[in-house]
Amino acid sequence: MPNGIRIGISGYGNLGRGVDLAIGQNPDMDLVAVFTRRPPDTIKIRDKQARIVHIDNVESYKDKIDVMILCGGSATDLPEQGPQLAAIFNTIDSFDNHGKIPQYFASIDRVAKDSGRVGIISVGWDPGLFSLNRMISQAVMPKGKTYTFWGKGVSQGHSDAIRRVEGVVDAVQYTIPLDEAIDRARSGDNPELVTDQRHLRQCFVVAAKGADREKIDHQIKTMPNYFADYETTVTFITKEELAQEHSAMPHGGFVIRSGKTGAGEENTNIYEFSLKLESNPEFTASVLLAYARAAYRLNKEGRSGAFTVLDIPPAYLSPKDGKELRKELL
Amino acid sequence: MPNGIRIGISGYGNLGRGVDLAIGQNPDMDLVAVFTRRPPDTIKIRDKQARIVHIDNVESYKDKIDVMILCGGSATDLPEQGPQLAAIFNTIDSFDNHGKIPQYFASIDRVAKDSGRVGIISVGWDPGLFSLNRMISQAVMPKGKTYTFWGKGVSQGHSDAIRRVEGVVDAVQYTIPLDEAIDRARSGDNPELVTDQRHLRQCFVVAAKGADREKIDHQIKTMPNYFADYETTVTFITKEELAQEHSAMPHGGFVIRSGKTGAGEENTNIYEFSLKLESNPEFTASVLLAYARAAYRLNKEGRSGAFTVLDIPPAYLSPKDGKELRKELL
Repeated sequence: MPNGIRIGISGYGNLGRGVDLAIGQNPDMDLVAVFTRRPPDTIKIRDKQARIVHIDNVESYKDKIDVMILCGGSATDLPEQGPQLAAIFNTIDSFDNHGKIPQYFASIDRVAKDSGRVGIISVGWDPGLFSLNRMISQAVMPKGKTYTFWGKGVSQGHSDAIRRVEGVVDAVQYTIPLDEAIDRARSGDNPELVTDQRHLRQCFVVAAKGADREKIDHQIKTMPNYFADYETTVTFITKEELAQEHSAMPHGGFVIRSGKTGAGEENTNIYEFSLKLESNPEFTASVLLAYARAAYRLNKEGRSGAFTVLDIPPAYLSPKDGKELRKELL
Repeated sequence: MPNGIRIGISGYGNLGRGVDLAIGQNPDMDLVAVFTRRPPDTIKIRDKQARIVHIDNVESYKDKIDVMILCGGSATDLPEQGPQLAAIFNTIDSFDNHGKIPQYFASIDRVAKDSGRVGIISVGWDPGLFSLNRMISQAVMPKGKTYTFWGKGVSQGHSDAIRRVEGVVDAVQYTIPLDEAIDRARSGDNPELVTDQRHLRQCFVVAAKGADREKIDHQIKTMPNYFADYETTVTFITKEELAQEHSAMPHGGFVIRSGKTGAGEENTNIYEFSLKLESNPEFTASVLLAYARAAYRLNKEGRSGAFTVLDIPPAYLSPKDGKELRKELL
């Protein structure tokens, strides 16, 4: 019988697996069940106590799960599953379609207020910890400029875009922040730097036998939105090389705010937050669990509706109580 | 007539001056008065609208000030003034005697609960934003190790300790984090590194005419707690050199957590927060004001008692509302 916070996972891809692993590092949490659209007997999970259940039967777990972690994608899964599951459970998700966050927030807020549950949306590192740092750095230094850099890391969206080019069998795209741009952001000169001046896009491509490589190269480099405005490199490699050297999922980045203080704004203060992750999905999953703890507590206090990382008192993320935190970490 | 959040400043040293300047950068705040133990007519402030008032008359401002920013020292001023002022106003302070925080928290909590006010204690960068990052990084990566580095910056406490050595006229001490130690913290090896292995102490000393410099050098380097366990350098300079080259107040530092994820803890993820401040008091003052906004809002919601940065929902720090924050910064 679980005696910690009872966790459910909806969707068992890279992120769901990460949550399963991270629960093993959080003694105050128990995995109750993994919910999937696939036939449950085709899935193997780390936790030996937990069940694997078809998503159609999720409602029967209404009183058996304290927080459901939504591990589906932002494009099609979450807009549908988010409101459905927030009607039944406290939820955590990593909705990362920045432009649609206000609309997604409203849809969760409506449902969660009705169900009396807490839904914390857009949790992870960006949106998530990076958002927190963009916000705090601006609040503590009203005069200044904030820069976000991503990478070095794999961008799934850009890798997918390359895979759709004719003649491409598989591909991995790394987003790499340009050192020179990072240095300029840290300099205090507050330069204007748009995203494409801050990042390099490095593509490793497996071409089909006999495919026109020059044409593939050209098509990638001129692809609007994704690559056309960026410095882009394309390297053709074999399928084996791709599997051996490019299957890890590193990522990370920087939030830098350069703020001015003083009577004549003569003093520059640099606020910098960075992550360097060997496993993007495992780290993201671990962040989701800390916010699951917060959702559980907020709901116990009678709160309901949608929240973001900006709304959560940091102490709610920790298994330690206020007294311990003040003594050990303040 | 002020129509923003009405701010009072208690104590007009470096920090108080910083708050005065920072109010000029926050359009939703107005400085009502500066309170001082000195004769009010001996003090000049930036803000032309605000009054300068003797601290004995502070109680008559009970209904004229929304948040009082306490800019006294932690050794003797705050333990006395904190509870006194929390009985009258919402307060913010930068109490930084880490070992006595639990006791100070309790003393403010008692008074502020009685008065129905909010007192946010130990605000600034350490304690403050560094505490926040120590706490969050531990919550999102339960397996790992956290390191705090300070500097390069002036330590007032250490500078004062040198000034008490016989034959010393004046002194400035810089705490400098060792690059090699920072690199090891970032490496993911999770080395044990005690404070004295992480920092160098650089002392610039003005000696009295005819003083025994060798003896001063020895007394500094063997001073227990302050220098004995550290790599320490002592350089003798003139009074003029001290004034010209060492009167700025830079500071900063790093919080680095190296966390392990994965089934066999095989992945290392580095979480890093850093500040590089040209003006320590101006930046600290600016952080205090963001938390003053939070204190004001919490109190408007009917909350009272003592809080720390760990308890405050980040959104409360920003002048923007939830909708704007979600749209622009999430």
